[in-house]
Order: sequence, then C-alpha cells, then structure tokens
Amino acid sequence: MNILRYPEKSEWSGLLQRPQLNYHTLEDQVRKIIDDVALNGDAAVKAYAREFDRYDAESLEVTMEEIQAARSQVSKELKKAIDEAHWNIQTFHKKQMHQTETIVTTAGVRCWQKPVPISRVGLYIPGGSAPLLSTVLMLGIPAKIAGCREVILCTPPDSDGKVSASILYIAGLLGIDRVFRVGGVQAIAAMAHGTESIPSVNKIFGPGNQYVTMAKQIVSRETVAIDMPAGPSELAVVADSTSNPSFIASDLLSQAEHGPDSQVLLISDSGDMIDRVKAELQRQLEDLPRKEIASKALNNSKMILLKSQKEIMEMVNEYAPEHLIIVTKNYTDLAEQVDNAGSVFLGDYTPESAGDYASGTNHTLPTNGWANSYSGVNMDSFYKKITFQEISRYGLHNIGDAIMTMARAEELQAHSNAVSIRLTYKVDE
Amino acid sequence: MNILRYPEKSEWSGLLQRPQLNYHTLEDQVRKIIDDVALNGDAAVKAYAREFDRYDAESLEVTMEEIQAARSQVSKELKKAIDEAHWNIQTFHKKQMHQTETIVTTAGVRCWQKPVPISRVGLYIPGGSAPLLSTVLMLGIPAKIAGCREVILCTPPDSDGKVSASILYIAGLLGIDRVFRVGGVQAIAAMAHGTESIPSVNKIFGPGNQYVTMAKQIVSRETVAIDMPAGPSELAVVADSTSNPSFIASDLLSQAEHGPDSQVLLISDSGDMIDRVKAELQRQLEDLPRKEIASKALNNSKMILLKSQKEIMEMVNEYAPEHLIIVTKNYTDLAEQVDNAGSVFLGDYTPESAGDYASGTNHTLPTNGWANSYSGVNMDSFYKKITFQEISRYGLHNIGDAIMTMARAEELQAHSNAVSIRLTYKVDE
Repeated sequence: MNILRYPEKSEWSGLLQRPQLNYHTLEDQVRKIIDDVALNGDAAVKAYAREFDRYDAESLEVTMEEIQAARSQVSKELKKAIDEAHWNIQTFHKKQMHQTETIVTTAGVRCWQKPVPISRVGLYIPGGSAPLLSTVLMLGIPAKIAGCREVILCTPPDSDGKVSASILYIAGLLGIDRVFRVGGVQAIAAMAHGTESIPSVNKIFGPGNQYVTMAKQIVSRETVAIDMPAGPSELAVVADSTSNPSFIASDLLSQAEHGPDSQVLLISDSGDMIDRVKAELQRQLEDLPRKEIASKALNNSKMILLKSQKEIMEMVNEYAPEHLIIVTKNYTDLAEQVDNAGSVFLGDYTPESAGDYASGTNHTLPTNGWANSYSGVNMDSFYKKITFQEISRYGLHNIGDAIMTMARAEELQAHSNAVSIRLTYKVDE
Repeated sequence: MNILRYPEKSEWSGLLQRPQLNYHTLEDQVRKIIDDVALNGDAAVKAYAREFDRYDAESLEVTMEEIQAARSQVSKELKKAIDEAHWNIQTFHKKQMHQTETIVTTAGVRCWQKPVPISRVGLYIPGGSAPLLSTVLMLGIPAKIAGCREVILCTPPDSDGKVSASILYIAGLLGIDRVFRVGGVQAIAAMAHGTESIPSVNKIFGPGNQYVTMAKQIVSRETVAIDMPAGPSELAVVADSTSNPSFIASDLLSQAEHGPDSQVLLISDSGDMIDRVKAELQRQLEDLPRKEIASKALNNSKMILLKSQKEIMEMVNEYAPEHLIIVTKNYTDLAEQVDNAGSVFLGDYTPESAGDYASGTNHTLPTNGWANSYSGVNMDSFYKKITFQEISRYGLHNIGDAIMTMARAEELQAHSNAVSIRLTYKVDE
C-alpha cells in the first residue's frame, strides 16, 4: 500500500480518484447481445449460454423439484447461518415501512402518498468461483416484504446446467417465484425485454461483472429501472492512535480479497498506527487463500496521514466510500459528521463482513462516489410512492384563485379553465 | 381524438404505445457540447449562450440586486398565489420526513438508517414562451426542507440577459443559494462538471426539451445523479356514465396544451360519455390561445371504450400514466386498484391543474411508462439513506458464527478472519 503523509488539499481529488472504468469499448458488444435477445428470445439466450457458459440448455427454468432437492444439499450449519442472517435482515428492513398519512394542506384539499410495490422485479445473482448466496438474501428479503407481485431470479449455472444448491435453497425459503439458469448479458436482456421462458420485469437488481454492469446501464435507458450504477467495491477505514491494528488489517484484507480492482483506504491522524497496520497487513496476507487477488488490490490502495480529525472527515466525505469503518475512540462523534457513505461500521467489534452477511443492513451499496447521491438498496428501492389528491368543491374554491393566477402567469389558459369551469358549474341541489 | 371500441387485449400494448422518441440522433451533438463545457468552462458556456440564446453574457450569475429587484416586479395577486401554493407544497412534503429509529436486530447488534441530505443540488428551470415558475416551487421547496447545503438554479435568460422576475422572486423567497442565467445543454454540462462561475452538483433536477433531457441522461452515466428519465407529459382519465363531460374535456385540454407531443387518454365503460366528451372538447378547444398545440396533441390521443371497470384498471396499470384522473361514481374503490401512476386525482373537483400548482403534491412525475418503477419527486429524492451499525463484542459473538459460515460458503476467508480475529482477541481487563 502507498503511504501518503500530509497531502495538500489541492492534491486530494487526484489521490482519491478511482481507477477510470472505460466501459465504452464494451458498449457495442453488449448492445449486440441485448438486441439479439430482444429479437430472438430464448433461442438467442441459449446460444449465448452455449458460447459463454459452455452450457447447452434444454430448459432455462429451474424446476420446483430442483429447488426442493436443494434443501437436502445444504449443510445444517449453513442453514442455521442463513436463518440468523434472514432474521436480522428482515427485522431491519421491515422497520423501514412507514404508515401513509392523509394531509389536509388547505381546508377541503386532501393529499396522500401511497407506497405501492413495483409489480415485477428481477434479481441477478452472479456465478463464478463461489455462489453469492448472501446477495439472494439482501435482494430477495426486501422484495418479498414489499410484496412485489412477481420476483424472479437469474443466475448462471455450471457447465452441467446446475445452479448452486445454496442459492436454490434460499430462493425456496424466501418464496422467489421463478428461478432461471441464465447468466451474463443475456440474463439482463431477457429480464428487460422478456423471452418465451423469462418474463420481463420493471426493475433489475444485483451485482455483476463489467459486462452485466454495462447491460444494466443500457437497458435502463429505455425500458427498465435498475437498482444503481455499479463499480468495484470500496472500503475506507478511519483510525486514531487507540485503534487495533490487527482488526483494521483484517478489514482491509476482507475488502481487498473481493477482486484486484477493489479499493481500500486507511485514513488516520496517527503515523504510528499506519505503520502498525502495514506490518499487520503483511503478516495476515500470507495465509489468505485469495492472497494474490488481495495483493493486487492493495497495490492500488492508500494509507493517508492527515493532521486532524476535521481533515479526515472532509476527506471521507469527498471520497464518499461504499463502506466506512470508524474505529477512533470518539467514533460516535465522527459518525455524526458522515455526509457521504453507503454503510458505516462503528467501533472495534463491527467488521465490514458483519454488514456483508448478517447485521441486518443491506450490502448492495453505492460505489465509485455515487454515495454522494444514492442510497444503498432499502425498502424504498422496491416501491413507487404514488401521490393522491381528493379535493372537494369547497377545497377547489379555496385554492382555485392560486391555481388560475399561476396558470395565467405560465400562459396556460386551459389549466385555468379546468378550475373555472368547475367553480362556475351550477350544481343541482 | 381516435375512438376505439372494445379493443382485444392482444391489441392493448400496441394502442398504448407512446410515440417512440429517437434520442440517439441527438446524442453526438449533445455530447460535444458537454465535453466542450467540461474542458473550457465559462468560455464554452458563454459561446453557446451567444449561439443558442442570442445572449452575450458578461456575468453568468444573477446578482443579489436583481433578485431583490424582482420583488417589486411581481404582482400582488401572483405573490398571493405563490404564497398559497408554497404553504400547501411545504405542508405536504414536510410530512414525508420520518424519524430514524435504531433497531436491535440481535442482542448487541444495533442498526439504523439515517437520511442525510444530498449536499449540492442543481435545479434546471426551462425558459421558453412563459416562465415555469411553479417548477421552482416544486423543486426548491423540498430541497430546502431537506437541508441540502447548496441549492443552485440555472435558467435561460431572454436576449437581454434578463431572467423572469417571477422565477427570481421565488428563488429569493425560498433561499435558493445561487441563480445562473444559463440554459440548455450548457447549463446541464456546467452543473455536472463545474465551471469557473458555476459549481458542480451531486444531483440535477428539472424538466427540459429533448436536448436537455439527453444531456441529463449523458451526465447521469458518469458523474451526477438525475431526478428521473423524462418524456412528454401524459394524462389518463377514467370515467363512467355519471361523470361530467365538460370537466373531463377541460382536463384533457389542460394536458394537451402542454405540447404537440402530449399524450391524452380517456378510458370509459360508457360509449355515451365518450361521445359527450368529444363534443365538449370541440366546443372548449375553440377559445384556447394554444388551440393549435392542443389540437396536435389530441390527434395522437385516444378515447377507449372497454367492457368493465376491471378491464379499465388493467389498462390503466399497463399504461402507467404520469397523471391519472378518476371521476367514476366509485372513484375511492378504483383508487385502491392503482398500481402504476405518478399522481392520481380523485373526483369531480380535483382537476390535474390543482396538482400542477397548488394542492401540495409534486408535479415532477414519471412519464413514458416509468411510473412502473419510479416515484415522482418527493423528499426521498433529496436524501441518501445511510445505514449505520454498531456491534458490541457480545453482539459479534452472537452473529459471528453466521458470518463466518456464510463467508466460507462464498469462499471469502478474509471476511471470516475479520470476525475470528476479534472473537479470539484477548481483552485486557
């Protein structure tokens, strides 16, 4: 890791820069697949599965029997872990629901906001070396709490067409409506446009590689909403001289093992702490199965020494990290100063991996500086808030002049007429 | 307007199709302007102002004196109307704020969600024949309630460099921090990338023509969030044999006068009502100042006769209108069946123009079918909801096994280590 001591403020934006992702080169390639799936449906999806996943699909949909069978293929221990995580995630997300209240803004004018679940949502769960079973929980639980009418899941199978038993087990547990053994761009295209087997959805959730990310970006321009723009995962740790260097090193490594493009920052006002974390990192890195990946990520990462906690929090807010761990003595005070972050972990016994799996918060979070303006996935992500208004004749009388005056100022006479025609209408009484 | 009687369900998706907007042809042109502004700042902004707005700008920022002077240029009547609308919009939006609550998901595991205002937001207010003063209220009021640190506004001036007094009056009233006499693509580019005069923002709000819409779409891919994808304005009216045809005609016309690309639908189970509305439309259209625009919009629009209210609500939800007026006898029942709409207007005395100006609901709403997945602008639009967690040693002990088991199932050993290193750590006591 690079150590930077007391950088000038003018250098900050340069040193906080994320690696620039040039997605443009992928765009044509990805768009071609999307157009093909939109036009040719299942046939195109199956052709790409053969080409990319080396899997020759007869049927794209996972059967109820396969989902049932998964129950006996998951260990008791993992089932127990899933149950505990399920409970915590469900508890935290359920509490985000708020009662809708009718507001009388002026006598006779009643307005309310009604959260209505998005009807059809699609969850994308990447494949790869290990199944991202936690992401099924993080997306499936809020979708089911919200009451989305149809929740489908796409995930790439292995070359035998098998989907991970743990993913199927959780899908069955949560009551995901349909599961498809389809991955990559073709899965996103199918959920956006619909095929003979796979229904189109209103919103697509879930992480993926750069092709999947590009595909989500493309379909979001025209047909379907997406959870958020995605980029490589990130962690910033704020520490002082009292922090525990071995805990910090373990957190930095848990972020770094995600991928060679993961971003890790340690920001501190203690040079000594930085040196100690560096030593711990070397020590802990040695035994990691994903040592090579983590080393690459650490090469892009930085330890930054600053003069004061005020500067530290300014830098944190400028960086807007996806994950933020604060392990200073006064972490409660610093937590109050967080303006931009996805999810924040406070104190010595709150590792990022707690939020990744089981504390209850969601792990689908804004990266790449989007924490400036985006929230992580939460219950809002699965709703539209529709506004309603019901105005009585008396109410329209009360606000009619305001409407007509403003409509005239905007030179929209018909807007004004819609009020005057009602106010001058003779009611038979 | 085209009248369609009892169309088959298989025909619905065709007849509900919006006019296809082909933005792609604009993309290169718009991107060139954005890149130029990103590179050359104020000089580029001023050059485009000269080219497109025929305005030779000395200073891009409206002075405090100009904003002060606007107070005497707005009529008493309009000020009163603005005050009433302000009150109602503020009342309705303030009630959307919810207390944040700490949830103990498992003993020792505390999680909470904290709404934090987006720091810097930019409001775009289009120019054109008449100032869209109502949009300043609809975007400025929630931004100020949220407590965004900096709220700026861009709007195109006339060729003398003057910005509408009513816009400046409202900007002053709400305490908008800075106002810039800049419109079009160059305004969006400046707010996204920042120039010498105009600060960059985290999120851009507001309507605009197809160039502005394209510009928002482009900058949203890389640097800055936007309120929502935009398209031409729309209204669907649901009526039965008891509805008032002249009221309905006035609402259809108030939508149609927005622009020749506005979409208007009347859906009813009463053929007689459709005929009567058609006659009323002709009559009321005659006297409209924007008769020509409204006529064009009506040419694209449809009156659809269906067999039952069940079918009507299915069609409404498939169309997902921006505005929905329900004026059947049982409008309260039908309101319960709305799945997809931006804002809903119930009963005879609730014209759409009430929501456009003064009922209290927001008029920035999802169009083009996006009501399937997007909400209109509301308080959520101005916040990130950051999650926090604080876990005690005891809490980590409680959920540690679940985290470690799931991490191992995902083959992420360092994630597991971050827990085990803490649980095996000897605390000096």
